[in-house]
Amino acid sequence: MKEIESLISLGRMVDPIMLDYIEKGAEPRFIPILKHQILAGGKRVRAALTILSCEVSGGEASTALKPAALIELIHNYSLIMDDIIDHGKLRRGKPTVRAKYSDAMAILAGMFYREALDEIVEDCPKPFEMRKLMRNAIKETIEGERLDILFEQAGREEEYIKKHRYKNISLNLYFKMISKKTAALIKSACIAGGLAANAPNELIEALGVFGWNIGLAFQVVDDILDIYGEKTGKERGKDIIEHKLGNIAILLSLKELNSKEKSQLLNILRKPKVSKIDLNKALKLIEKTKAREKAYNIGRKFIEEGKKAILNFQDSEAKFKLLDLADFILNRAY
Amino acid sequence: MKEIESLISLGRMVDPIMLDYIEKGAEPRFIPILKHQILAGGKRVRAALTILSCEVSGGEASTALKPAALIELIHNYSLIMDDIIDHGKLRRGKPTVRAKYSDAMAILAGMFYREALDEIVEDCPKPFEMRKLMRNAIKETIEGERLDILFEQAGREEEYIKKHRYKNISLNLYFKMISKKTAALIKSACIAGGLAANAPNELIEALGVFGWNIGLAFQVVDDILDIYGEKTGKERGKDIIEHKLGNIAILLSLKELNSKEKSQLLNILRKPKVSKIDLNKALKLIEKTKAREKAYNIGRKFIEEGKKAILNFQDSEAKFKLLDLADFILNRAY
Repeated sequence: MKEIESLISLGRMVDPIMLDYIEKGAEPRFIPILKHQILAGGKRVRAALTILSCEVSGGEASTALKPAALIELIHNYSLIMDDIIDHGKLRRGKPTVRAKYSDAMAILAGMFYREALDEIVEDCPKPFEMRKLMRNAIKETIEGERLDILFEQAGREEEYIKKHRYKNISLNLYFKMISKKTAALIKSACIAGGLAANAPNELIEALGVFGWNIGLAFQVVDDILDIYGEKTGKERGKDIIEHKLGNIAILLSLKELNSKEKSQLLNILRKPKVSKIDLNKALKLIEKTKAREKAYNIGRKFIEEGKKAILNFQDSEAKFKLLDLADFILNRAY
Repeated sequence: MKEIESLISLGRMVDPIMLDYIEKGAEPRFIPILKHQILAGGKRVRAALTILSCEVSGGEASTALKPAALIELIHNYSLIMDDIIDHGKLRRGKPTVRAKYSDAMAILAGMFYREALDEIVEDCPKPFEMRKLMRNAIKETIEGERLDILFEQAGREEEYIKKHRYKNISLNLYFKMISKKTAALIKSACIAGGLAANAPNELIEALGVFGWNIGLAFQVVDDILDIYGEKTGKERGKDIIEHKLGNIAILLSLKELNSKEKSQLLNILRKPKVSKIDLNKALKLIEKTKAREKAYNIGRKFIEEGKKAILNFQDSEAKFKLLDLADFILNRAY
């Protein structure tokens, strides 16, 4: 556990860089709004991954600081926008940018983040490649969020959304969604570190496979925590309240429940408003199944697959830290 | 008038380029949402300015097409986001992206536009300079929008906005706002054309002065049309309905009205909901003053100042078209 804290403090090294770029060219009165998302904290897992991926490729941690700040700022850019989309009020126990400063100011802050990203990337090693990496990661994240929204079963009243919702979601489609929503950026975090270290292509590819797999596991574990977690700082069952079918624990439960129970669970997700009673009923239905164990095993397989990709890298402190970080991601689930 | 149509058709040459970049890497189901804003039309004044500024600098129109598409797409990016911020339902007589596809999809579309911009700029002549121009223009536009929101006198219930509204707005502050909200991008449109033509610095600077001034005039005329216009396709007095104090006709009226009338006008702007009766009363108060004439004269001075900046350019068809375009911008006011 102590090691994980040291990993996180590694990630935190990017905070001053993010804050520095975020303020450039901003009016003084806009700056508190811009800083809020960064100052609200976060684990900085992505930044740590970039730094360690650089080190494991033989580069200096210092070379990876700007790429790490870039990746972490992409993440925070998407969080500002996602909170607007989902009307999120709290994140990490603190008010979201939109809750504190209005949707209008949050949109402008998000847009400003994107310009700050353009400036950081210019100051990164290999700016051309980094920029392409960033652009593709952002496009993937947008597509993942688009699918996640359309996987919701209720809660948005717009005709377009109601008409285009996915009513049935296969595990394959779920993996497509999370691979874009979450894994693409985590994969990019690892690749950015390799790029910064000027690593050869096979090494960068291996880092990509590592990042991709632990990224998938990351989201699977997040889904598990949403349904079963207790001390996460988040409301338990938030995905159910938000009508989300794009949660692996829910999807696996639906496969196991009998048709009556399946309808009950789906009906709750499709209610215009999910009450406390509905939520508890849904959680009980899910708890009847082996979804937790099954989801955990899926996450574990991703972690194993990810670790395998970097296992024959030369031994180094950074390599062991990356392997630890992979385990940490999985261990959050229990 | 015919000439203006030919100018506009000049600008329309960028439509296929914008549509092409907008689709890159997008899922088929997302594409109609992405195309909507472009297909909804627009005058493409900014694109025409870029193309003509390139030609007036001795460059080929074809060299300026991607830079022109870049500028026009920045504009459309900001429109998608502004419509979300202002809950806009109609633009150019058609539903806005958010009205047709939901706020959630519109935010994602806006974000995707920003990535398309990143790709266009890479394919422009002088990508490094173009990129800096783009970034600064977007940052300015964000700041202008921020001020415009805080110049509203009611209509947003968030604590932050209520607390930070500007109650009095000097003409200077108004010009600061419109210089960012509108003139910065129009100035950039002209500079982009000069850059594409590889024009010398003095020429680019002169184009910047031209663009800046006609950009200010553009917004002044827009404000006039909002209050006095009839056949604009927009609701008359939309700025009043939207509680906007950042309209030059309103600001000039307030300076002229006696203190009782001034209070009446301000009170209407500060009503939680402006009724049809309120709107007509406000328009009557404004019509009592010489605000229209005064605003027009301010616009005219900007146009003159702008034209002066390029007057000693070598005579060419492009130069005369730019001068015509400047006059066209002003003449919309009557």
